[in-house]
Amino acid sequence: MITFRAASAKDLNDIVQMLADDELGSTRERYETPLPESYIKAFEAIDADPNNELIVACLGEEVVGVQQLTFTPYITHQGSWRATIEGVRTAASVRGQGIGSQLIEWAIERAKERGCRMIQLTTDKKRTDALRFYERLGFQATHEGLKMKL
Amino acid sequence: MITFRAASAKDLNDIVQMLADDELGSTRERYETPLPESYIKAFEAIDADPNNELIVACLGEEVVGVQQLTFTPYITHQGSWRATIEGVRTAASVRGQGIGSQLIEWAIERAKERGCRMIQLTTDKKRTDALRFYERLGFQATHEGLKMKL
Repeated sequence: MITFRAASAKDLNDIVQMLADDELGSTRERYETPLPESYIKAFEAIDADPNNELIVACLGEEVVGVQQLTFTPYITHQGSWRATIEGVRTAASVRGQGIGSQLIEWAIERAKERGCRMIQLTTDKKRTDALRFYERLGFQATHEGLKMKL
Repeated sequence: MITFRAASAKDLNDIVQMLADDELGSTRERYETPLPESYIKAFEAIDADPNNELIVACLGEEVVGVQQLTFTPYITHQGSWRATIEGVRTAASVRGQGIGSQLIEWAIERAKERGCRMIQLTTDKKRTDALRFYERLGFQATHEGLKMKL
């Protein structure tokens, strides 16, 4: 059975390993020993922010999935809170077992608990499987996701 | 000359008026006197959160533009901060004067000041002019923007 909990600093190694073990992630993450300090600082900032949650999915003691949730009070849509999902990954060893869907379903429930009126994410247009996955779960690709590196 | 500053509670009326005076916004905002309480609560939550900034553009004393910036510490991209822009609007009276571009250029500079490595936004696929506007400013539509109402 899969359980979900807030990540602790001890999970960071497993999390970065999952982020790096990905077609796009492998080009931009650095899974090294020791972990680059930037990951540790980001974890600390997330952990200290009540509007950010780094969530791990566990199979027994093993960390097999991760996602980050951000809760934002927006002035638009009549001043409603919104949840944003980012960095969804599952461990290669458990792919195809529906753990990704369980992660997202968990995020949807958590967003409702937090009083959000919308949940959103962006996915790289190169990830055609991911787009179908999210559409099956009820998301609609109504928007263009625009990015600029600084 | 356009100046930019953090919005105060006194600007909320002008802000909601701009949000509602928009093809898509008119279907989902409520510009009424008094303003619905949800806008006031959202303003208070934004104002209390160091990672959210509601910014107005002013021409003299007059509020002629608005945007909300959210700064998020992400574990992805080697644990880098990211800025998200939402709810960009300019007053109908000043459209076509480049104030929208100045808002976004201001957001880009603010994101750099905050140490962000990326700036991002989503725009409704129905807003074809907006897509071209953001692409001209250097954004790339590399992602699908997926949403689900809760």
